[in-house]
Amino acid sequence: MSSGTVHRSVRLMRRPAPGLITPDVFEIAEGPVPEPGEGEFRVRIAFVSLDPAMRGWVNEARSYVPPVAIGAVMRGYAVGIVEASRHPGFEPGDAVQGLFGVQSHAISKGERVVRVDTGLAPLERWLGGLGMPGWTAYFGLLEVGQPKAGETVVVSAASGAVGSIVGQIARIKGCRAVGIAGGPEKCRYVVETLGFDACVDHKAGDLATDLKAACPNGIDVNFENVGGDVLDTVLMQMNPFGRIAVCGLISAYTATSLPPGPKNLRAVLTQRLRMQGLIVFDWEKRFPEAIAALGQWHKEGRLAIREDLREGGLAAFPEVLNLLYTGGNHGKLVLRV
Amino acid sequence: MSSGTVHRSVRLMRRPAPGLITPDVFEIAEGPVPEPGEGEFRVRIAFVSLDPAMRGWVNEARSYVPPVAIGAVMRGYAVGIVEASRHPGFEPGDAVQGLFGVQSHAISKGERVVRVDTGLAPLERWLGGLGMPGWTAYFGLLEVGQPKAGETVVVSAASGAVGSIVGQIARIKGCRAVGIAGGPEKCRYVVETLGFDACVDHKAGDLATDLKAACPNGIDVNFENVGGDVLDTVLMQMNPFGRIAVCGLISAYTATSLPPGPKNLRAVLTQRLRMQGLIVFDWEKRFPEAIAALGQWHKEGRLAIREDLREGGLAAFPEVLNLLYTGGNHGKLVLRV
Repeated sequence: MSSGTVHRSVRLMRRPAPGLITPDVFEIAEGPVPEPGEGEFRVRIAFVSLDPAMRGWVNEARSYVPPVAIGAVMRGYAVGIVEASRHPGFEPGDAVQGLFGVQSHAISKGERVVRVDTGLAPLERWLGGLGMPGWTAYFGLLEVGQPKAGETVVVSAASGAVGSIVGQIARIKGCRAVGIAGGPEKCRYVVETLGFDACVDHKAGDLATDLKAACPNGIDVNFENVGGDVLDTVLMQMNPFGRIAVCGLISAYTATSLPPGPKNLRAVLTQRLRMQGLIVFDWEKRFPEAIAALGQWHKEGRLAIREDLREGGLAAFPEVLNLLYTGGNHGKLVLRV
Repeated sequence: MSSGTVHRSVRLMRRPAPGLITPDVFEIAEGPVPEPGEGEFRVRIAFVSLDPAMRGWVNEARSYVPPVAIGAVMRGYAVGIVEASRHPGFEPGDAVQGLFGVQSHAISKGERVVRVDTGLAPLERWLGGLGMPGWTAYFGLLEVGQPKAGETVVVSAASGAVGSIVGQIARIKGCRAVGIAGGPEKCRYVVETLGFDACVDHKAGDLATDLKAACPNGIDVNFENVGGDVLDTVLMQMNPFGRIAVCGLISAYTATSLPPGPKNLRAVLTQRLRMQGLIVFDWEKRFPEAIAALGQWHKEGRLAIREDLREGGLAAFPEVLNLLYTGGNHGKLVLRV
């Protein structure tokens, strides 16, 4: 069978132990390419997205979505081209993005599928800055963070898929954008390519001192992707009535036991901070608004987007996924199928 | 000199070491009774309020108000009677509440002073349910917690000055009110006298199990006075889009090192919780609204208020203050001067 006639999928075989994902957690299953039923279409997947949230999806713990079932195809965002359709809204050749799963082909009823414009940006970009991470940055910063022009916005994991967009939107809205990232290369990228006002290397020097130097007027909005010590340090520099948009706590996702929470929670009280969690699905009805805004800024050259595109196909999935938790990726992590 | 002609004040002599307050932190100073200048009045203080926040006010750490200076009169709310006035708005005989300090007499320009109605309730009650703790409960629950009828509201330190009012307002607004308190006597008081739907004893049984039994539909609003393990347990039972009003973190105030923060902070993300700190001063312009509402409910018999009135005068201040951090008080703690 040629690769076009075999359906390959990454299946969850067991709940992972705490820590990084071991290869035995997933297996690749092969079978015949499925045919769409009435009202369905089949998409040939070109790229799958690797997202920090995946580490939570494979756990059994309570979360905002049910865990991936043992034996099921791993949940994941993907982009591809429709190649067969019995759905009135989709035709062969359509470029689409959706929660298609980590596999070579997917059958879809079109629910939550977004048609993407490959004239505006290549397919893989619709998994990054123009896709879910971009929408997360857009609603998380603007709706939860509510930055006002002239305020200081701090973003952790600033070179990452979401963080890189958050800081650029903050700049577009007239704020001072300060990133936190690991290592000089990432920090240079955040300032020189993404145009943040400053970026603090949390692996060098003293984070509290360096952050204070980068935020002379304190911090009004924190877009939190990391948690742990980084959040603790930020908390101590928040201005009164500051907002903390909790988008991710990646420092905890692969910890082998629950790490301690922020010791400086008292700042929430004394500074009257608002700390609020966000899941992008809650703005689902407004995704077109985000797509339009992000697409426009990107077209105007005001929004730099970079993917970290990895080869190796589905077999490389577990290994590539772990890059997210070791800081090994550089921008939005995408796997070519 | 008779007691009416000597001015006695509790002065802060040194920053306390972490933990409970030791007696040497304060000293009593004596001197002549001060005379009001032009635009000032003198109040003879009858009762001073003992509040959890006091432990923070004597530290040097960054907070929402500057620390009490070494040598200065200890900051504190008090009620008393105006006995001499050169202020056009206050006359001898007026009953007043204000941040008069822990002393026998105070000179005031009338700033932030509230005239109280001793026909509606005795003087000391205006330090409790009808005073600052009541206003804190009112704005914290209604403005930050935003409870809707039918929702479940959980209050820690439920028998305390603020918690006792929070649960009763929650009931008035049609919510299920569940308290958390230490010991069977406090829990009985919370249910039988204050009319909460349930109260969980955090010193008995398993808090998580008992809380789940008391909150079969999960928790929509948490009014947090304690922090630490109690907050951690509550976090795991919050419903999506729940609100956590952070009013106090008393479990941390006397800790000898910063205790760990909430391990279950991840719930803020997965459940899209809003956690927000509150300081009652932020609603200062709306205090009359709270006074009117609380006074009305109290008059109608829908709002039970109890003071834990202690004798011993100013000399007993350090010892009585520590009761707040050991759970030794029972209702709003007030010291007769």
